[in-house]
Amino acid sequence: MLVNGELKTSIWVDSDSSVWIIDQRWLPHDIREIKLATLDDFHSSISNMLVRGAPLIGVTAAFGLASHMLHDSSDEAIKHAYDFLISARPTAVNLRTGLDYVFSRINDCPRDNRAEVAFAAATTFRNLEIEISKEIGNNGAGLIKKLHQQKNRQINILTHCNAGWLATVDWGTATAPMYWADKIGVPIHVYVDETRPRNQGAQLTAWELGQNNISHDLIVDNAGGHLMQHGMIDIVIVGTDRTTSSGDVCNKIGTYQKALAAKDNDVPFYVALPSTTIDWRITDGHK
Amino acid sequence: MLVNGELKTSIWVDSDSSVWIIDQRWLPHDIREIKLATLDDFHSSISNMLVRGAPLIGVTAAFGLASHMLHDSSDEAIKHAYDFLISARPTAVNLRTGLDYVFSRINDCPRDNRAEVAFAAATTFRNLEIEISKEIGNNGAGLIKKLHQQKNRQINILTHCNAGWLATVDWGTATAPMYWADKIGVPIHVYVDETRPRNQGAQLTAWELGQNNISHDLIVDNAGGHLMQHGMIDIVIVGTDRTTSSGDVCNKIGTYQKALAAKDNDVPFYVALPSTTIDWRITDGHK
Repeated sequence: MLVNGELKTSIWVDSDSSVWIIDQRWLPHDIREIKLATLDDFHSSISNMLVRGAPLIGVTAAFGLASHMLHDSSDEAIKHAYDFLISARPTAVNLRTGLDYVFSRINDCPRDNRAEVAFAAATTFRNLEIEISKEIGNNGAGLIKKLHQQKNRQINILTHCNAGWLATVDWGTATAPMYWADKIGVPIHVYVDETRPRNQGAQLTAWELGQNNISHDLIVDNAGGHLMQHGMIDIVIVGTDRTTSSGDVCNKIGTYQKALAAKDNDVPFYVALPSTTIDWRITDGHK
Repeated sequence: MLVNGELKTSIWVDSDSSVWIIDQRWLPHDIREIKLATLDDFHSSISNMLVRGAPLIGVTAAFGLASHMLHDSSDEAIKHAYDFLISARPTAVNLRTGLDYVFSRINDCPRDNRAEVAFAAATTFRNLEIEISKEIGNNGAGLIKKLHQQKNRQINILTHCNAGWLATVDWGTATAPMYWADKIGVPIHVYVDETRPRNQGAQLTAWELGQNNISHDLIVDNAGGHLMQHGMIDIVIVGTDRTTSSGDVCNKIGTYQKALAAKDNDVPFYVALPSTTIDWRITDGHK
């Protein structure tokens, strides 16, 4: 997506195979691009939240495992890197998905070949995330377009936290339908929850919508229910950190309160969901 | 209630009839006591939120009207003061209640006598607010005690914004049952919503609970629903800015979201309500 008028992704590989990210802790005030070299760099970029967002965490971990093989592609080194990286953040199942995607592809590889195959796998995994985001955008924009055709006016969307392109590689999950709706000429306005305590809505979502010329307002987390009561929200779209096989969603604190308000006011509530965030091992014990 | 170990109220009259308040905008960092002298002082103390909270606004306005009569007790001056003070804040019906309480008592007064009668009426109105808070405390503590007898453990209470003694004259509305429960030996813990955008929970409620040795945690507004889902809240108690004659409550933004979460999790939800906040002219149009 656009940053100061230029197309950017949240993680990219240079011609010398070095992996780069944006240190998101400084946004919106500063755009700091960081090169990840060592295994420690990759681990700390996730655990210290230089990168965040379930899909981006998965892609970063995939590149972390692949990059480590450039230095040491022994079975022990790979096992160590896998275990170390998976410990970086407990909530995002994509972390495991990304590591498994790379790991499963080097199983039958001769050792000399592993780094190359792993790097190609990480790149494929990254491209897959972009494709998934695009498809979420395409599908979600259809929903928004339908609402626009019904109401014949601007469609007002509420979102919580940052499930934007900064949380994925490009387009985002929750934001992808917004960017695509805008692209196909559907007039939208986005209400962005501040998202306390870390303010990802204020610092990331509002920033990326602004950079991409999407009409939006930043609101406090307390305000969404009130806006819904007054008919000012047509649809809620959020992301997910992890999704159970029975469809239950674990997402940023406060998502539940917005879902309750949406239900109480008959506002459609969608989770923009890449398949990589589904944890098939978990069902909802309450059911 | 206690401030640095000494008993305080939020508004008091000195021996020379001067009216004093705490400029609450500096809390919890600084306790600034301010003397209100002119009609402008009273108006701006309300409109600029040096004082806030429906009951305290009413008492401040009552003293404002009475104090102005010390300078000029003509019909025109009283009418002007009434109209000017009522314009200071639109949401709190207590503003009108306080002014009407004083105004109704000087109707048949000779002009020379008005200031004295008005001042006595404002003082009575202030004392009435304290009595109301005490009764709310007494009644509400009974509810908390009952929960304690049922569960035989510490009772966890969630509150939103500041409906504490700083919002009234003494004891508070939502906090009165907490202070009284503590007084009669019922073990309680209070979760205090930060209350964005103005942070009254963080800056006022957490401060006054701390000053009065009530066990508490400050939480972001997003967290309450999650705590309720996990059985960590036994009762929610909030205040109200204005209440319709049909019982609908208008309170700080975010109260509605907490009420929805309480309903979804079968957590009892109470509004600690002084009769002065009921606006008998308004019914809920939705009913």
